[in-house]
Amino acid sequence: MTFTPGTTGLDVLVSECGPRDGLQILSRIMPTAAKKRWIAALHAAGLREIEVCSFVPAKLMPQMADAAEIVAYSRTLPGLTVLALVPNLRGAEAAIAAGAHKLTIPVSGSEEHSLANVRRTRAEMVEEVRRIVEYRNAHAPDVPVEANISVAFGCTIAGPVSEDDVTRLSVALVEAGVDDSGLSDTTGMGNPAQVKRLFTRVIGEIGDKIGAAHMHNTRGLGLANVLAAYEAGVRIFDSSHAGLGGCPHAPGASGNVVTEDMVFMFEAMGLRTGIDAAQLVASRAILAETLPGVELYGMLAGAGLPKGHRPATPAVTHAAAE
Amino acid sequence: MTFTPGTTGLDVLVSECGPRDGLQILSRIMPTAAKKRWIAALHAAGLREIEVCSFVPAKLMPQMADAAEIVAYSRTLPGLTVLALVPNLRGAEAAIAAGAHKLTIPVSGSEEHSLANVRRTRAEMVEEVRRIVEYRNAHAPDVPVEANISVAFGCTIAGPVSEDDVTRLSVALVEAGVDDSGLSDTTGMGNPAQVKRLFTRVIGEIGDKIGAAHMHNTRGLGLANVLAAYEAGVRIFDSSHAGLGGCPHAPGASGNVVTEDMVFMFEAMGLRTGIDAAQLVASRAILAETLPGVELYGMLAGAGLPKGHRPATPAVTHAAAE
Repeated sequence: MTFTPGTTGLDVLVSECGPRDGLQILSRIMPTAAKKRWIAALHAAGLREIEVCSFVPAKLMPQMADAAEIVAYSRTLPGLTVLALVPNLRGAEAAIAAGAHKLTIPVSGSEEHSLANVRRTRAEMVEEVRRIVEYRNAHAPDVPVEANISVAFGCTIAGPVSEDDVTRLSVALVEAGVDDSGLSDTTGMGNPAQVKRLFTRVIGEIGDKIGAAHMHNTRGLGLANVLAAYEAGVRIFDSSHAGLGGCPHAPGASGNVVTEDMVFMFEAMGLRTGIDAAQLVASRAILAETLPGVELYGMLAGAGLPKGHRPATPAVTHAAAE
Repeated sequence: MTFTPGTTGLDVLVSECGPRDGLQILSRIMPTAAKKRWIAALHAAGLREIEVCSFVPAKLMPQMADAAEIVAYSRTLPGLTVLALVPNLRGAEAAIAAGAHKLTIPVSGSEEHSLANVRRTRAEMVEEVRRIVEYRNAHAPDVPVEANISVAFGCTIAGPVSEDDVTRLSVALVEAGVDDSGLSDTTGMGNPAQVKRLFTRVIGEIGDKIGAAHMHNTRGLGLANVLAAYEAGVRIFDSSHAGLGGCPHAPGASGNVVTEDMVFMFEAMGLRTGIDAAQLVASRAILAETLPGVELYGMLAGAGLPKGHRPATPAVTHAAAE
């Protein structure tokens, strides 16, 4: 794992993916200044890993045209791991040149999704991952590279995805040299029994190279699936502030697990995230202001923390969000 | 338990509480004809236990003034257990006279909530439960009586609730003669670690007299808490169609776990509920029509069942909902 529980005073690592996963599907482009303000607020609330952008051609994804500037800004926030998504070697070169601390590479769990999404087979993507790792080894040996298998629990094109395939792909990615490899329920098709079973099996093969659980809340099972992944041994969890990031294949459906709700769950369970859930709720104001009309998800924001709530993170006192 | 897994072709019993829990807090009164139509649709979707009303004075809760008529109607639906909430002996007498198949009695887990809610101490409520059981024994020996401890995982008045108290209260209720005793997270303050710990402890004391887990989704943890309760050994789960039933103490917060989302979770996990989730989604139209302006919760309704979904319940083919 690129995170070792306990060593940093944290029991789980929450990896915020909103600035990348949440923004990439919006037709609206968040201004660079707003992105910085948002990332600063996330950092101020205690987040210590943020996927701030993806390095893709600006003409394909104009929302990410300011990726290098966003990485440079994010590097000024103390203690923050600046994570960037890279779909290929060219993206990895750009991300490393920009100074990203850590790279994440999506690899499709189904052949159909892989071909539709990146016009490459899964085997070709494993080779691309190997090239990225070799480049990293030569030019930025301190930058961890993680892979994450998308549609690992079901695919909108293929339907059910073979657990044998996902397990083999996890092993192949580790053999290609990634520092860890996680599983994504990209379209919110997973259920807790499946999540627990598949993570347990993959961990049985790749051990502490297991990476993040990236769960979606498309059908309301997001936190139940997070819990199942935790029980299987996962300790890194992707989530998105206000649940930004719908699934483009499921219109009207929310996307990522909501960071503030997940933080509340972990902290209430006695697991230290280092994050102040109330501050995350307050920071939703930035999104309401800079992304007018975009639906914000999550239940904690409406209900507030319960009376007598005692977070596991001792005396969460961060700089004010704004 | 008043439900034995397996014997009826079901692995878990979903007890729909919408017509009682969902309607009682609305200022709007659902017309009797609409209630019947709704209950018929729930039954047609496969629900086999529905809490159709509460027997309380009509001047206190005009939404339930038609309780006897609703019970009489619900008794005509084949295979349905007609469950009625009764707060006291007088309510139990009325429910049995009306023909309810099963009674549920709420008992507060905190002294403060008990006094505020029913102006009785918890010990006084245990005595009332004993009187109800004695009345049942004399007049309707075939009618199971269940208790359910409200605010078992946290109280909006008292804050944290003693797990010792809740455990002792569970034992006292079983000693008073109830057929089973469950736990409610009335205000959505529970977390999965706590839910699993407390249910495990209570089951350790009262064994198969454990009743329903009644979880709320106030802070988004509803299904994670359901999963935790399942893992602790619970097999009866209360939930509400479209999540109707907010918490009156948490304005803007949703209430009960959403039946259709929970059914999807269980069925996807391979656990037979006997219920057709898609039919439940379709039946939300009745609520949209008869309760205009009331917010309907749940994620499955927006996203639909995933491609290739195979429910555990074989060939769920019920009468059309309407």
